[in-house]
Amino acid sequence: MSNTIDLIPGNTLITDSPLEGRILAIKMARLIIKATQPDDQIRDKLRDIYARDAGMLISIGHTVAIEFATIAAANNYWKK
Amino acid sequence: MSNTIDLIPGNTLITDSPLEGRILAIKMARLIIKATQPDDQIRDKLRDIYARDAGMLISIGHTVAIEFATIAAANNYWKK
Amino acid sequence: MSNTIDLIPGNTLITDSPLEGRILAIKMARLIIKATQPDDQIRDKLRDIYARDAGMLISIGHTVAIEFATIAAANNYWKK
Amino acid sequence: MSNTIDLIPGNTLITDSPLEGRILAIKMARLIIKATQPDDQIRDKLRDIYARDAGMLISIGHTVAIEFATIAAANNYWKK
Amino acid sequence: MSNTIDLIPGNTLITDSPLEGRILAIKMARLIIKATQPDDQIRDKLRDIYARDAGMLISIGHTVAIEFATIAAANNYWKK
Amino acid sequence: MSNTIDLIPGNTLITDSPLEGRILAIKMARLIIKATQPDDQIRDKLRDIYARDAGMLISIGHTVAIEFATIAAANNYWKK
Repeated sequence: MSNTIDLIPGNTLITDSPLEGRILAIKMARLIIKATQPDDQIRDKLRDIYARDAGMLISIGHTVAIEFATIAAANNYWKK
Repeated sequence: MSNTIDLIPGNTLITDSPLEGRILAIKMARLIIKATQPDDQIRDKLRDIYARDAGMLISIGHTVAIEFATIAAANNYWKK
Repeated sequence: MSNTIDLIPGNTLITDSPLEGRILAIKMARLIIKATQPDDQIRDKLRDIYARDAGMLISIGHTVAIEFATIAAANNYWKK
Repeated sequence: MSNTIDLIPGNTLITDSPLEGRILAIKMARLIIKATQPDDQIRDKLRDIYARDAGMLISIGHTVAIEFATIAAANNYWKK
Repeated sequence: MSNTIDLIPGNTLITDSPLEGRILAIKMARLIIKATQPDDQIRDKLRDIYARDAGMLISIGHTVAIEFATIAAANNYWKK
Repeated sequence: MSNTIDLIPGNTLITDSPLEGRILAIKMARLIIKATQPDDQIRDKLRDIYARDAGMLISIGHTVAIEFATIAAANNYWKK
């Protein structure tokens, strides 16, 4: 894994709102894939595959859901 | 991902009841798929596939269950 | 998703015992599948498939386990 | 699902030790499969399949791990 | 399942360190497979399969991660 | 499993920041694969496979997400 990859934008799990937490969850899930496959061209090809595959899209949703669970707990569910 | 996608309707995890929490979980799971595959026509085709595939339907249930776990915790399980 | 689908019977996660929590978990998992594929005839066909497929039966157990984890936490594990 | 199926032996998540919790997790996972496929002969055939399939054995372990997580939390991890 | 299988070595989730917790997680995951397929020769054959299959190795890691989450919580994350 | 494998670098779940927690999660996931398949040459071949397979890359992200959830909880989400 390249040291230069930013695995968590801003290096924090704290966000202003659930929506921003959701966006962070998507980014964190994608950055793990980038860390595992750093070649941009290969990842572009793979994106074409998973964006048209129902099962893989569901799996991506699954992973984002787990990342989001962690972010939501970190933010105490954005309760005021 | 388009900035205009509403990843969490209302930008809150708080709902009035478990039923509304469940509906939110379904929506959140679908909106991640929409964020990953924004093309409506492609998503319609994929929906025809997963809605007739036993394994994929089970996987969707799996993802919704995880989203719901987070929503339920955020609402302290709707205890009064 | 039809508005008339009852995604959580009784609209509560609270049950009298672990057994009833388990039954609720099974129902909640099935109702997500029903919300995603509302056609009764198609679901009947799919049930014939997954009830005879070892891998899919295991996956159903997986989803029920996650739903049950949420229900169990909501009931504070039915501790007295 | 037959009403006569005992989905949780003893109708409690509380056990005397981690080992008994583990045994309960295995039973709970199997009883969900039994509730979904009540025919003993079909389940026997399916057992022959998954007990010789590396991927399915791993999936069973996955499901048991989730059931056990709930049981362990219910027992406060058997701390004294 | 044979009564003689030791599903949790030492019948405790408490370990001295994260490393020992990780080793316990691996053992617990393997012992579930052993309980489901007690035949040593069959398991040896299956091990040859999953140890050379990228997808199955990832799945094993997934299961170990869940077992470890439970063990880590039981040990309060080995905080002093 | 070889006794010499370092399953958790530093034998601690505590890290200075979310980014370091994320890096630890990736390492922990990889070290389980190494413990299950200690042969470096076989693992190199398998890496070529999963780094070019969209579904497997998603699965790796899934496993890392679970490891990270544990690490994040251990660090109380790096809240100050």
